[in-house]
Amino acid sequence: MLVELEGKGTLGRRLARGVRTAIRAGRLQPGDRLPAQRVLADTVGVSRNVVVAAYGALIEEGYLESRRGAGTYVCTDLPAEQTYEHGAIAFGPAPARLSKRARRLSQAFERAQPIWAPPSRRPMIDFRYGPPGFRDLPFETFCRILGRRFRRASKSHLDYGDPAGAPPLREAIARHLGRTRGVHCDASHVIVTRGTQEAVRLAAEVLLDPGDRVIMEEPGYLAARHALSAHGAHVLRGRVDAQGLSPRAIRARSAPRMVYVTPSHQFPTGVVMPLSRRLALLERAAQVNAFLFEDDYDGELRHDGHPIPSLQGLDGDGRVVYAGSFSKSLFPALRIGYLVASQALLPAFRGEKTLADAGGNTPLQLAVADFIDKGHLERHLRRTRVANQARRAALLESVRVYFGERAEIAGAGAGHHVVLWFKAIHANSAPRMRVRARDLGVGIYPIAPFYAGEPPCAGFLLGYAGLTPEQIAQGIALLAKATRETE
Amino acid sequence: MLVELEGKGTLGRRLARGVRTAIRAGRLQPGDRLPAQRVLADTVGVSRNVVVAAYGALIEEGYLESRRGAGTYVCTDLPAEQTYEHGAIAFGPAPARLSKRARRLSQAFERAQPIWAPPSRRPMIDFRYGPPGFRDLPFETFCRILGRRFRRASKSHLDYGDPAGAPPLREAIARHLGRTRGVHCDASHVIVTRGTQEAVRLAAEVLLDPGDRVIMEEPGYLAARHALSAHGAHVLRGRVDAQGLSPRAIRARSAPRMVYVTPSHQFPTGVVMPLSRRLALLERAAQVNAFLFEDDYDGELRHDGHPIPSLQGLDGDGRVVYAGSFSKSLFPALRIGYLVASQALLPAFRGEKTLADAGGNTPLQLAVADFIDKGHLERHLRRTRVANQARRAALLESVRVYFGERAEIAGAGAGHHVVLWFKAIHANSAPRMRVRARDLGVGIYPIAPFYAGEPPCAGFLLGYAGLTPEQIAQGIALLAKATRETE
Repeated sequence: MLVELEGKGTLGRRLARGVRTAIRAGRLQPGDRLPAQRVLADTVGVSRNVVVAAYGALIEEGYLESRRGAGTYVCTDLPAEQTYEHGAIAFGPAPARLSKRARRLSQAFERAQPIWAPPSRRPMIDFRYGPPGFRDLPFETFCRILGRRFRRASKSHLDYGDPAGAPPLREAIARHLGRTRGVHCDASHVIVTRGTQEAVRLAAEVLLDPGDRVIMEEPGYLAARHALSAHGAHVLRGRVDAQGLSPRAIRARSAPRMVYVTPSHQFPTGVVMPLSRRLALLERAAQVNAFLFEDDYDGELRHDGHPIPSLQGLDGDGRVVYAGSFSKSLFPALRIGYLVASQALLPAFRGEKTLADAGGNTPLQLAVADFIDKGHLERHLRRTRVANQARRAALLESVRVYFGERAEIAGAGAGHHVVLWFKAIHANSAPRMRVRARDLGVGIYPIAPFYAGEPPCAGFLLGYAGLTPEQIAQGIALLAKATRETE
Repeated sequence: MLVELEGKGTLGRRLARGVRTAIRAGRLQPGDRLPAQRVLADTVGVSRNVVVAAYGALIEEGYLESRRGAGTYVCTDLPAEQTYEHGAIAFGPAPARLSKRARRLSQAFERAQPIWAPPSRRPMIDFRYGPPGFRDLPFETFCRILGRRFRRASKSHLDYGDPAGAPPLREAIARHLGRTRGVHCDASHVIVTRGTQEAVRLAAEVLLDPGDRVIMEEPGYLAARHALSAHGAHVLRGRVDAQGLSPRAIRARSAPRMVYVTPSHQFPTGVVMPLSRRLALLERAAQVNAFLFEDDYDGELRHDGHPIPSLQGLDGDGRVVYAGSFSKSLFPALRIGYLVASQALLPAFRGEKTLADAGGNTPLQLAVADFIDKGHLERHLRRTRVANQARRAALLESVRVYFGERAEIAGAGAGHHVVLWFKAIHANSAPRMRVRARDLGVGIYPIAPFYAGEPPCAGFLLGYAGLTPEQIAQGIALLAKATRETE
C-alpha cells in the first residue's frame, strides 16, 4: 500500500506520518495528486475526518498543497526524489571535519578522562582526592538560604543578569578574599566563573594566542594543562622543588606569556611556597613580562599558622590573574568560582564571559552571597579546618606507625590531601600497588598522571576530607598490608 | 617610627602588618635585625606577648627568621629593596598584551552591549524582546521541585558530574525535543549547555578554525555573530527573504564551513521557514559540505497549526547541530540549554564542554528533569501559547486600528515577538521614533542593530510576552501618537 498508519498517537497523526514517509521515501513525488479523502479513508480503514486532519496538518507543514476544486497534491517546490528518510537520522555519519582545536582536544580529552571520571565501584575506604568532606558541610543551611532566594526571586533576578556575576556575590567574594587570602581587589575586579576550569579557559582566551608559550608546574594540574593545550598554547614544564615552582623555570629565552602556578598548596605535591619564592617569582615574571595565573584552589584550608598572602596580593603591576572556587569550600556541583583580574584586563574578561555563556544563574549566586555575608562560609571553613586537623593527625600518626621510615608524607601543611612517597619503590610499581590496595578495599591514586615526565619514585595522592579519623587509620593499616605484599 | 600598629584586628595582627609594611617599603632590609621583643613592645606600647605573636606569624609567613640566641632578622632570601607596596595593587597598570582574540572581542563586545544591557529606567509599557512572560511561569512549582532536589541531593549529586549534563535531564530533553520539535536523538546526543550562547561557542570551537567562513542570517542574532567573529570566523551575510535564509546564499565558491540559521522563527524578522526551503537548505549544505547550526530559540512557541519539524529532524547525514534553551520556556537566569549533535561530533563536543567548565550543576539539572518528566513544562507551554495568543490578538488588532495601512506586522506566526515595519519611513528615523515613544512611556527596539547592512525601512522588535492585552493596546495607542509626531 502507498500510505500506512505509522507510529503512535491519534489516527490523524499516524496517517500524517505515513504520508510524510511516502513523500520522503520518494513513493509520492512533488506534483503527485493524493487520493481523494474518501478514497484514502476507505483504503486505510479510517473515518474521513481522520484524513481531513492529516491532510490539514501536512498542508500547514508544507508537504502538501490543496488546489481549489482540484484536490490535494504533494508540494511542487519540494526537492524531487527526496531521500531524506525519517528515523535513524542523527545517528548517520557526520562530515568528520573538526577544527584543529577539536582534533587537539580529542587527544587531550582521552588522557583527561581518568582524572574526572569517578571510580565505577567505590572502594570501602576511598582516599580519592577532589570532593571536599560533604559531612562537614552545613548543607541544610545552604538549602534554606537557596530556597528563600529562589522563592523571593524578582523578575529581574530571573532575567539575564550581569555576565560578570551578580554584584552582591562579587562584593562578598572580594571581601572574603581580602580577609582570608590577602587578595587586593574590589567587586569590580571579580568575574564569577563556573569554577577554576572556566577561569583557566578564560585566561587562555584573553591572554594567549595559539602557539604562545605557557609554563606549567611539573608535576601539575592535568585539567589546566589540557585546557591550555587545547587552546593551542605551547606548554613548557617548570620544575617544582621543595619551595614550589622554581623561578629559574621562567627563562627570558623561552619568552613565556603566562605562568600557571599553585603557590598556596602546589597541586599535586602539596608544597606551600614561601614568601621569598613568591616575591622571586613575581620579579622573574616582571623581567620577562609574563602573566601569572594563580590557581588558589584550596588556599583557605591551610592548617599551620597564618596563611601566606596570595601572589595577587603581592603583585605590584597587575600581572597576576587570581582564580579560585567554592568546589572545595562548598561543593563541586555548585559550579561557582571566581577570577580576579587587574583593571586593564577586565573589559576583555567581561566580554569573553558574556560571549561564552551570557553569565550566571542569579538566584543561585545570590544564595552563595547570602551564605558568605551571614558568616556561614567562614564558620564552615573554621569547623572544616578543625575536623581536617583531626583527620590529618590520624593520617600522619598511622603512616608513622605502619610505615615508619619506608614512606614519607609531603604536602600536609594545607588543603585536604597529602602525597605519600615510597622512596625505595620505583614509580612503575605504583599501579600494581594501587590494584593490591583496591583488592583490600582501599582507594589510592598514583601521582604519575600529573607528571608530563616521570615521578622520582612511587607516590600516591591521599585525599582525607571525606573520611573519619577511624577510617583513615584503618585505611592506612590496610595499605601497609598491601604494600608489604608489593615490596 | 620604624614600625607602627596598622589596620584592624588584634594588636598582634596590627603589629605584624606594620612590620610587613616596613619590609615592603624597604625601611627594613633583608638581613636587618629587628628590635628585641621587649624593646619593640615598649616602643609601640603593647605587651611583650603581642610582639611574640607578631614575630611568630611573620616567621611562618617567611618575612622574618629567628637565629637561635641571636634575635630575629628580616629573611635574607627576600629580594633586596622591595618595592611591593601593599594597597592599591590590583588597580595598577597591567601588561596590556591581550590575545588577538581578546582584541577582536573588545570591539565586538562594545557593539554587543546595547543588546544585553537592560534599560536603566524601565518604560511604563516595555516591548523589550528577550525575557519570557514571567507571569505565566508556574514558579512556585519549580521552586518546590528545586528545593526537594537540593535537600535530597546525594553525595554524588554534589560532586563533579557528567560534563555533558546529568543523564536524567539529557533523557528528558531528548524525549521533549522528539515530541515537540521532531528532533531525532537520544540522550547520548544531548549536551547540556549554559544556553544557546554557549552552544554557539562550543560549535565554533569544535567545527571552525579561525579564518573559516560562516554564513549568518542578515538580519540576524547579534550575540551569535559576535561569538563567531570573536572566534576568528569570517562571517558572511546570507540574505533573509520571505521564507527565511536563502539557500542561494550558500555558494560553493565561498566554501562556508557552517551556516547559522533560525528556521522556526527567524531572528529578528520572525519568518517561519517552510518545509521546502528547509529541504533546499539541507541539500545546498550537503553540496558544499557545510555544517548547519540550527538555533531553535523559541520553536516551542508556534501559534498557527502544527510545528514544522526542525532541520535536525530532516537531516540525513548529521550535519545539523541543533541548539535551544529553557531561557524562553522557563527563565533566562536558569542558564540551562542544550545542543544535539550527531555521533561523530560527540567526543569533541563532550571534550570541549569538559575543559570549558567541567559541566553542570547536578541538583539544578535534576530539578529541570523532574519539571519536564512530571509534565509541568508541556502544561506551561500550552498555557503560555494560549496566553500569548490573546496578547498577539490584542497586538494585531491594535496595530490595525491605530496604524491601518501605515504599518505592517511580520513574524506573528510563532514566538513572542513580532516586527512592526513602517514602509514609508526611512530606517534613519527609527532612533528618533524610539526616543519619542520612550517619552510617552513606551519601550520599542529598532531592528537596525541586527543588520550588518541597513534595514529596508524603519522597523521595530516588539516583544509582547511580558504584557497584558490591555497594556499592549495602550502601548500601541501611545506608539501611534509618538509616530504621528515623527511622520
